[in-house]
Amino acid sequence: MVKIAVDMMGGDDAPGIVLEAVKKAVDDFKDLEIILFGDQEQYTLNHGRIDFRHCTEKIEMEDEPVRAIKRKKDSSMVKMAEAVKSGEADGCVSAGNTGALMSAGLFIVGRIKGVSRPALVVTLPTIDGKGFVFLDVGANADAKPEHLLQYAQLGNIYAQKIRGIKQPSVSLLNIGTEAAKGNTLTKKTYELMEAQNDFNFTGNVEAKTLMDGNVDVVVTDGFTGNMVLKNLEGTAKSIGKMLKETLLSSFKNKIAALVLKKDLNQFSQKMDYSEYGGSVLLGLDGTVVKAHGSSNAKAFYSAIRQAKIAGEQQIVQTMRETVGGTNG
Amino acid sequence: MVKIAVDMMGGDDAPGIVLEAVKKAVDDFKDLEIILFGDQEQYTLNHGRIDFRHCTEKIEMEDEPVRAIKRKKDSSMVKMAEAVKSGEADGCVSAGNTGALMSAGLFIVGRIKGVSRPALVVTLPTIDGKGFVFLDVGANADAKPEHLLQYAQLGNIYAQKIRGIKQPSVSLLNIGTEAAKGNTLTKKTYELMEAQNDFNFTGNVEAKTLMDGNVDVVVTDGFTGNMVLKNLEGTAKSIGKMLKETLLSSFKNKIAALVLKKDLNQFSQKMDYSEYGGSVLLGLDGTVVKAHGSSNAKAFYSAIRQAKIAGEQQIVQTMRETVGGTNG
Repeated sequence: MVKIAVDMMGGDDAPGIVLEAVKKAVDDFKDLEIILFGDQEQYTLNHGRIDFRHCTEKIEMEDEPVRAIKRKKDSSMVKMAEAVKSGEADGCVSAGNTGALMSAGLFIVGRIKGVSRPALVVTLPTIDGKGFVFLDVGANADAKPEHLLQYAQLGNIYAQKIRGIKQPSVSLLNIGTEAAKGNTLTKKTYELMEAQNDFNFTGNVEAKTLMDGNVDVVVTDGFTGNMVLKNLEGTAKSIGKMLKETLLSSFKNKIAALVLKKDLNQFSQKMDYSEYGGSVLLGLDGTVVKAHGSSNAKAFYSAIRQAKIAGEQQIVQTMRETVGGTNG
Repeated sequence: MVKIAVDMMGGDDAPGIVLEAVKKAVDDFKDLEIILFGDQEQYTLNHGRIDFRHCTEKIEMEDEPVRAIKRKKDSSMVKMAEAVKSGEADGCVSAGNTGALMSAGLFIVGRIKGVSRPALVVTLPTIDGKGFVFLDVGANADAKPEHLLQYAQLGNIYAQKIRGIKQPSVSLLNIGTEAAKGNTLTKKTYELMEAQNDFNFTGNVEAKTLMDGNVDVVVTDGFTGNMVLKNLEGTAKSIGKMLKETLLSSFKNKIAALVLKKDLNQFSQKMDYSEYGGSVLLGLDGTVVKAHGSSNAKAFYSAIRQAKIAGEQQIVQTMRETVGGTNG
C-alpha cells in the first residue's frame, strides 16, 4: 500500500479537477491510499481509501511563498507537507503556488543530508515519444559546478527509478557539443562530470537537438532550464496558434482541417508534457510533486501516479543512500 | 554610393549562392558597389559595379578561428575585413566560419573605442510578422551586468537605424517579469537598466512570450541568447518534421495537405528568420554581417541589403558617438 497526501485547494481549477483525479486514482489503483487536505464544504467524495482532513486556510497563487508557508499553518499545502515529514504519507502532490510548494519542501519536508540544493525536474516530450528527464528547471537560478554534478546524480536515479531506464545517458546542456564550448559554469561542470563514475556521462547536448530523443537525462542550471522550458512551451504555443489561424483562414482550409483533425490532435498530444506528470523537487527527504497550475484532471491524475511510483520505487531512500552518502 | 565587401568563398553553397545574390543586389540597387573576394577560377560574373579581387586562400568551416585569421593572410575573409578596416568598404558580408569571422571582426576591423565587448545580434520572427532584435546570441558566453547594459545601448541604436523604430522598447530576457526575478546577473542588470536614460527600458520579458511581438529589443548574455536561439530553431524544426509526417501519413491527409500547401508555405516563411538578413557583430568599428552558413541566395541577398542599410544609416558612426562617447 502507498499513501499519498494531496492538496485539494491548489491550482486554477481546484478543487474540481483534484477531486476528479483522486477519484480516478483510487479506482484505478487498489494499493493506493490518499490523505486529502482541503475545505470540507467543497469535499464531495466518499471513499474507503480516502482519508479527508479539513483545513481552514488556503495558500493563494499570489501569496509570497516563504511568508505563506510560515503564517498559514492550517493551509492544505502546509498540512500536506507535514504528512510527508512525519512519515504518515509516502509523498505529496499539489497544483498550487510553485514557490510556496518549494518552500514547503525545503522548510517542512527538508533536504536529504548531503544534498546542497534540491532541483526541480520535469520530463519533456521528444519526437519519438520517449521523452527525457530535464533538471533544474528553476529551483535555483544561480548554480555552481558542484551543484550541477549533484543534479546529474539525482536525475540519474530519477530516470532509473521513475522512468525505468537501466543505465541512463546523462548530458550537459550547452551551446556546443565540444568539451571546450560554453560559459565558465558549463566548462567546469564538464570536467567534473567527465571525472566521475556514478553515472554515464555522454557529453554536451545542444538545445536544438533536445527533442530528437537521443538523451535520457539533461542537466542545466535553474535559470537556463527555466528559460528553455518556457521557450519550448512558448514556441510550441505560438506555432500552434499560427497553424490554427492557417487552418481556419478559408473554407477549403477548414475542410482540409476536418480531414486532418484526428491526426493533428494526436500530434499535439505528443507535444503535451502534462502526459508525463508534474515536476518533482528532487533532493528532498520525501517526494514532492508539483502539478501544473493549469492542470486538468488527467494531468493531476498523472502527477498522483508519479508520486505513487516514486513511493513504490523508494526513490528517496536510494538518493539518501547514494547522493547523500557520497557527499554528506 | 555604398560599397560592401563580400566573401565569395564562405558558406555551405558558396560560391554559387554568393554570386547569385551579388548579381541580384547590384541589379536591384543602383547605388551599390561590391568588392568581391574569392577564387578567380570560380568567378563567373562581369559587372561594372563589381570590383573582383583574387585571393589564393580560403578559410574552412573546421579551421580554428583565431589561428585561421592570423595565418591565412590571403584568404577571402581576411581580405574582406581589411577592406572594411582601411575604410575602402562601408561594411562586409560572409557566410563562412562564424568564429573566424568574429575573430576577423575583433582583430582586423577592431572594436569601437569604449565598447568593452561586441555582441552578436539577430532579428527573430514574431507571430505578427514584425520581428524583434535579439542580442547577444553568442559573441561572449560569460557576461557582466555592465556588458548587458552596453548590449542594450547597441541594440537600441540597431533597432532605430536598421529597423526604423523611432523609440524601441528594450527588455531584459529573464525567467519572470518581476524586477526581483532571475539570477544574480539579471537582477543586477535590471537595476542598471532601470537607472539609465539612454533607452526605453520596459522591464523583463520571458522566453515564452518572445514571439508575441510586444518587444523591439531583447537583451541577454551570449550563453542564454545562443541557447534560446538554437532552442527556437530546434523546436520549430521538430514541430515542422512531425507536422510533415502527419500530413504524409495517409492518402486522405496527402490530399488535405495539397489543399493547404500554399498557406502552409506562407506560414513556414513567416517563421524563417533568414528573411530578416544575417546576424551582425555590433560594437565593431565597421559593419560585419554574418550570413547563415546554410544560406541560399535569397538569405545572402538579405544580408547584403542589411549591410547596405547599415552603411547608409551610418550606424557605426552613431555608435561611436553615443556608446563609445559615454563609456570611453
